[in-house]
Amino acid sequence: MTSPKPRIVIVGGGFGGLATAKALKGADAEIVLIDRRNHHLFQPLLYQVATAALSPSEVAWPIRHLLRNQKNTRVLMATVTGVNTDKRAVLLEDGTQEPYDVLVLATGAQHAYFGHDEWEQHAPGLKTVEDATAIRRKLLLALEAAERETDPEQRRALLTFAIIGAGPTGVELAGAIVELGRASIRGQFNTLSPDDLRVVLIEGADRVLLNFDPDLSRYTLDALHRMGVEVELGKPVSKIDADGVSYGDKRLMTRTIIWAAGVAASPVAQWLRIEGDKAGRVKVEPDLSVPGHPDIYVIGDVASITRADGKPVPGVAPAAKQEGKHVARLIRRRLAGDTATEPFRYAHAGDLATIGKSSAVIDFGWAKLKGWFAWWIWGIAHIYFLVETRTRIIIAMSWLWIYLTGNRSARLITHGQAPERKPLEEIDAD
Amino acid sequence: MTSPKPRIVIVGGGFGGLATAKALKGADAEIVLIDRRNHHLFQPLLYQVATAALSPSEVAWPIRHLLRNQKNTRVLMATVTGVNTDKRAVLLEDGTQEPYDVLVLATGAQHAYFGHDEWEQHAPGLKTVEDATAIRRKLLLALEAAERETDPEQRRALLTFAIIGAGPTGVELAGAIVELGRASIRGQFNTLSPDDLRVVLIEGADRVLLNFDPDLSRYTLDALHRMGVEVELGKPVSKIDADGVSYGDKRLMTRTIIWAAGVAASPVAQWLRIEGDKAGRVKVEPDLSVPGHPDIYVIGDVASITRADGKPVPGVAPAAKQEGKHVARLIRRRLAGDTATEPFRYAHAGDLATIGKSSAVIDFGWAKLKGWFAWWIWGIAHIYFLVETRTRIIIAMSWLWIYLTGNRSARLITHGQAPERKPLEEIDAD
Repeated sequence: MTSPKPRIVIVGGGFGGLATAKALKGADAEIVLIDRRNHHLFQPLLYQVATAALSPSEVAWPIRHLLRNQKNTRVLMATVTGVNTDKRAVLLEDGTQEPYDVLVLATGAQHAYFGHDEWEQHAPGLKTVEDATAIRRKLLLALEAAERETDPEQRRALLTFAIIGAGPTGVELAGAIVELGRASIRGQFNTLSPDDLRVVLIEGADRVLLNFDPDLSRYTLDALHRMGVEVELGKPVSKIDADGVSYGDKRLMTRTIIWAAGVAASPVAQWLRIEGDKAGRVKVEPDLSVPGHPDIYVIGDVASITRADGKPVPGVAPAAKQEGKHVARLIRRRLAGDTATEPFRYAHAGDLATIGKSSAVIDFGWAKLKGWFAWWIWGIAHIYFLVETRTRIIIAMSWLWIYLTGNRSARLITHGQAPERKPLEEIDAD
Repeated sequence: MTSPKPRIVIVGGGFGGLATAKALKGADAEIVLIDRRNHHLFQPLLYQVATAALSPSEVAWPIRHLLRNQKNTRVLMATVTGVNTDKRAVLLEDGTQEPYDVLVLATGAQHAYFGHDEWEQHAPGLKTVEDATAIRRKLLLALEAAERETDPEQRRALLTFAIIGAGPTGVELAGAIVELGRASIRGQFNTLSPDDLRVVLIEGADRVLLNFDPDLSRYTLDALHRMGVEVELGKPVSKIDADGVSYGDKRLMTRTIIWAAGVAASPVAQWLRIEGDKAGRVKVEPDLSVPGHPDIYVIGDVASITRADGKPVPGVAPAAKQEGKHVARLIRRRLAGDTATEPFRYAHAGDLATIGKSSAVIDFGWAKLKGWFAWWIWGIAHIYFLVETRTRIIIAMSWLWIYLTGNRSARLITHGQAPERKPLEEIDAD
């Protein structure tokens, strides 16, 4: 009789968890990956689902499918509610437990509203496939409602779209919404003109893309202006309700607000009964283990760790992937009986953001790119990093099609009803 | 001053309504197409969305987009609640009205449960994009739940899928569910084997594909058996509940039941305050107008009309399209001042059904095809009839991919939660 194999439990099938599982392929252990969803999501392109350029199934794949060739790995679709560190078991919502020898927590972040949770109902964020189709529905229904609205003030509010937060997601959404709105209106609505559309990007800091080189921020601001996006800088949001948003000393009447500002870590710190930082992240040891729990690693957006130069490791996909691979390497060593550890070293590849058709910025640190050349690099890089061959082909084709014809293919309103003259909030509540 | 143009109002953006609107391109009239959804749906391929082969946006397109080149046509996303035939106006849910000079009603059919509306919650039908993603979710969640279920009886119920009704939709669903289930299980679930899967097709009549030649029905039955589908003929369903389905003298324990049996017309007869037939359809004049209302036409699944040979015109897409074109021709004549009418003549192109990979049946009347050759014709015909060039390419590619690799790309569970050990019905109620 052989003794049972060590159990490695990974919670979360995002970039970090998936990278960990993949790097443990063939390891002599029983690996269990738990996620409450059945799919891995390629979040960098989720804004394109929200703006009808791509379909959900083009940016999401079943985790089981991605790990189908790993005999040592089991995928569990279940919701984790806590960790019993004494018994070394993950607690699931249905009351069962999954015991572990080594635990990797990679549960990511959710949007956070700076203590104003009541804003969420009026300003949804963009983290899940459902978030994306809900925002798509909101955008398209606003145009449908505007087409039928006779009151000029209401009409203006319906045709005004506000995005809170000018990081990469906010910038990409602003550009894509202008393009979606104009292309949808052109020739397809009788009472609307593309010029009626107003897209306002609101940012508390004094420049867009705060993590990029200031020169690229300036370029991006100009590019947004050229596209017709209004950018409001240095004006923190003070109020969001069904009628609009207040920021600085201004008030904007709008029926569509999208939140791209703050995120907070998922409740891993509570699970472990330790103190998180102010965004709820777990301050990990240099090797990504949890202080006092050498058998638990925390990676990705839930981990707080600094680089050699003192800057924090950013909450981006490449960081989560690198952390997953690092942890898998340490686990493989453990399995071989070697408990020596090693600090994680982050290699920053660069920051990318696309602004609209034929315009993007890339900050490699050692080089800055902007304009159409950066846009092509951005597109090629994203296609390269997609998980599946089939998706690479389909997305390349979808983009080519939009590039050549301007037609966005996925302009479906699902789970929605025909607009009546009542607040859109009610319509969306499904 | 010119007098206002005649107003043609079309209700419904399915095959019939869209064909009417397209055939009125350039007509000297104001055309208004009203639909409560923003998209036209290519229903013949909807079962492929339900079985994760295609994405919703591959079988549905915004109606505005399809009619974007028609200057004389306005598209309205709104819900119709009735018709005021005295005032000649269509009543909308928000209390407004749309006046008409000529009205075309093309609102299609919904599933009907033979007076057992309580069955719907346990046995959803397949008519809308949301129906398809709900069925997809149900199928995929059943596998996820089975993977975690330890009670053998519950497990068997989770791995049993029942389809009620062996018309083309039921046959196509049965074949596709076997393929989806086996391909999903293979190598991707630890506790499940493809052999655990049970698909049962239940039909009240004594053969499958009742509208086809009996020889093709026999062939289809054999093909289904070869695929491993259990077919129960001559056994009408007597009860459907959360635990399973009763038919004939049998009882099948299953957690997933799909309704592909009966349909009923949408409530056009009530709107017009006339008597419908037993499926709720309006018995129209030979020219498709409503008796006593020469300015109102009813087409598609809501119209009841017989062919020259006394058989009813079937509720299929080609019939609806032909009727739409016929009505548009009569309307163009009217616009030219010619009130002479002409009876509608239906040209039956044939009946098609696909059974699974490389197998289909086609009944042209003058010729019967079956097997792989019929399957290729079926595929080519469907791609040909798709509305958009882009979709033709994408669907051809998706099919080729599945054909070559067996990987279905759209296996996403959306709007669902991780399975717990509670009835699936609760999980799906979103």
